[in-house]
Amino acid sequence: MALVSVEECRRAAQLALGNVGADAEAAQLQTDLLLDAELRGVPSHGFLRLERLVTRIGNGVANPQTRGVHSWRGDSFLSVDGQQGLGPVVASHAAKAAGARARQTGIAVAAIANNNHIGMLAWYAETIAEAGLVSIILTTSEALVHPFGGGKALLGTNPIAIGVPTDAGPFVIDLATSLVSMGEIHDHAHRGAALPEGWALDADGKPTTDPEAAKRGAIAPFGAAKGYALGLAFELLVTALTGAALGRDVTGTLDAVKPASKGDVFIVIDPLSGQGAALAAYLDVVRQTPPVPGFEKVLIPGERGRARKAERLVSGITLADPVWASMQRLRDAAPAGGARS
Amino acid sequence: MALVSVEECRRAAQLALGNVGADAEAAQLQTDLLLDAELRGVPSHGFLRLERLVTRIGNGVANPQTRGVHSWRGDSFLSVDGQQGLGPVVASHAAKAAGARARQTGIAVAAIANNNHIGMLAWYAETIAEAGLVSIILTTSEALVHPFGGGKALLGTNPIAIGVPTDAGPFVIDLATSLVSMGEIHDHAHRGAALPEGWALDADGKPTTDPEAAKRGAIAPFGAAKGYALGLAFELLVTALTGAALGRDVTGTLDAVKPASKGDVFIVIDPLSGQGAALAAYLDVVRQTPPVPGFEKVLIPGERGRARKAERLVSGITLADPVWASMQRLRDAAPAGGARS
Repeated sequence: MALVSVEECRRAAQLALGNVGADAEAAQLQTDLLLDAELRGVPSHGFLRLERLVTRIGNGVANPQTRGVHSWRGDSFLSVDGQQGLGPVVASHAAKAAGARARQTGIAVAAIANNNHIGMLAWYAETIAEAGLVSIILTTSEALVHPFGGGKALLGTNPIAIGVPTDAGPFVIDLATSLVSMGEIHDHAHRGAALPEGWALDADGKPTTDPEAAKRGAIAPFGAAKGYALGLAFELLVTALTGAALGRDVTGTLDAVKPASKGDVFIVIDPLSGQGAALAAYLDVVRQTPPVPGFEKVLIPGERGRARKAERLVSGITLADPVWASMQRLRDAAPAGGARS
Repeated sequence: MALVSVEECRRAAQLALGNVGADAEAAQLQTDLLLDAELRGVPSHGFLRLERLVTRIGNGVANPQTRGVHSWRGDSFLSVDGQQGLGPVVASHAAKAAGARARQTGIAVAAIANNNHIGMLAWYAETIAEAGLVSIILTTSEALVHPFGGGKALLGTNPIAIGVPTDAGPFVIDLATSLVSMGEIHDHAHRGAALPEGWALDADGKPTTDPEAAKRGAIAPFGAAKGYALGLAFELLVTALTGAALGRDVTGTLDAVKPASKGDVFIVIDPLSGQGAALAAYLDVVRQTPPVPGFEKVLIPGERGRARKAERLVSGITLADPVWASMQRLRDAAPAGGARS
């Protein structure tokens, strides 16, 4: 493992993206999203993804120049053709436009197709909440999750994030509708550790505790039938709004060669004023609930990640050696097409 | 148990509501919601609630006349003061207005405060989907659910419904963020059956399998930390939009004397055209997933309830004897204030 300062990580990722044609703003936004995941302790959405992204740019399935094409289908409905742009670049421009419109009309939605992986949703929800707006954010992914009672991966991990501004700062949840992430399966595989029962099925739809078999199989939905229902509803809702591919037709968030065919939805709402103090006071009451045996205290979602972020901004980030080696290699590579922009 | 025809149930409930001052449209909407829950097999949201509702009208905390007062805070944001109206009456008028606006602007939200219990959310999601629109519906409730790791009820059961139109008809999910409903706890109490472990805590925050102790305690969130995060986010989001009370300050959905202080949120979206066939085809693929051992087949959420409804529309509804006796008594009561409207 390598302990690297935030500034050194940031610089390496930005230069790596610049080397393959990203301009300064695009390189910064994409880097911010990867960095934020590392800071909050979600390395599956961190710099691990940089090399594949650079390869995708080289392969012509990620365009580091575009911001996406915006068309308003109604005063409050923004359709975005992501033109295979960098996920965070297209998504944050779309979210900003939806937020500005929500301040006028009360609510607006941005529905994005043809966009690369947008990274950790918490980043957007927090940014939007810091601007005083409520958000509901959905994005779909390659099919990795089996239906409740079914033996085959047919659903994306289909996460949801919700952000609500309060007087004590943004309240943010960000959770996949799978029981665990594919990153956790890979982590068990690396460590040669068995999976807990109930996490995964193998390629034949049989329960397995072997992480290698799980990689070729399917992850369980969280919360049994209810989590399955939510994941399925998000898959349908996102496609209804964006025209994205469904189920096993979704490509481009895990591979290096196929266009990204999933969808992203940002619903942004201008809340009532004057509720921020009540929301913060209620969160305090929840935080102070007497814990049950086995728990030290009741946690508010998002706060552990935020504490980790504050810590790592100072201490730096611990990266797996191959990840940091790859970042340095990409940083020091010759710029594509000659000059660095 | 009494087997009663749908028409007889409908007539009894409508007359009972008419007797306490509801006009024909209001009595019909309120009855439809109670009836729909019985038809789909969710008696906790069915005619069991009629007597309390009639009492609430008598106590002046449910107003059978109002449709709620609408104010547009922006072109796409409808604030509704429910004026303690009948939940389904206020909610369906608000949802209709939001739907009409969504057809113009792409998306609209109705945020409702001061409204009585709106019944099963699936009814609204299905009605809206039948009109070709997508919906996300939230409502809060009295605090019945403990935070993950906490020993006290501080969250509503905070359900979510999502409806998406497809070429094979509406796709609808409707689920509470609690592991089970308080209705299921009461059902175990009636039968003198122990609760499964993990369902509930007693009033001291200790795990219990005694349904009587659970009634005074708290129900678990579904899906551990993730279901808790969702329930908490819904509680905050609804209050941010409606100004509703939070946590243990919520009243009026289980008692007969206090004003209803929870909130309801309807987000209605006009989807892209042309996705309905793809959505229906995908649902077929999911439905045909080979089941894992212990399952006969993979279910699509909502379909079991819909099948039950089709059956019961013909066969009639089985009501607990005290429920049917109470409905008959309320039906045959003298109209309040003399004449029946």
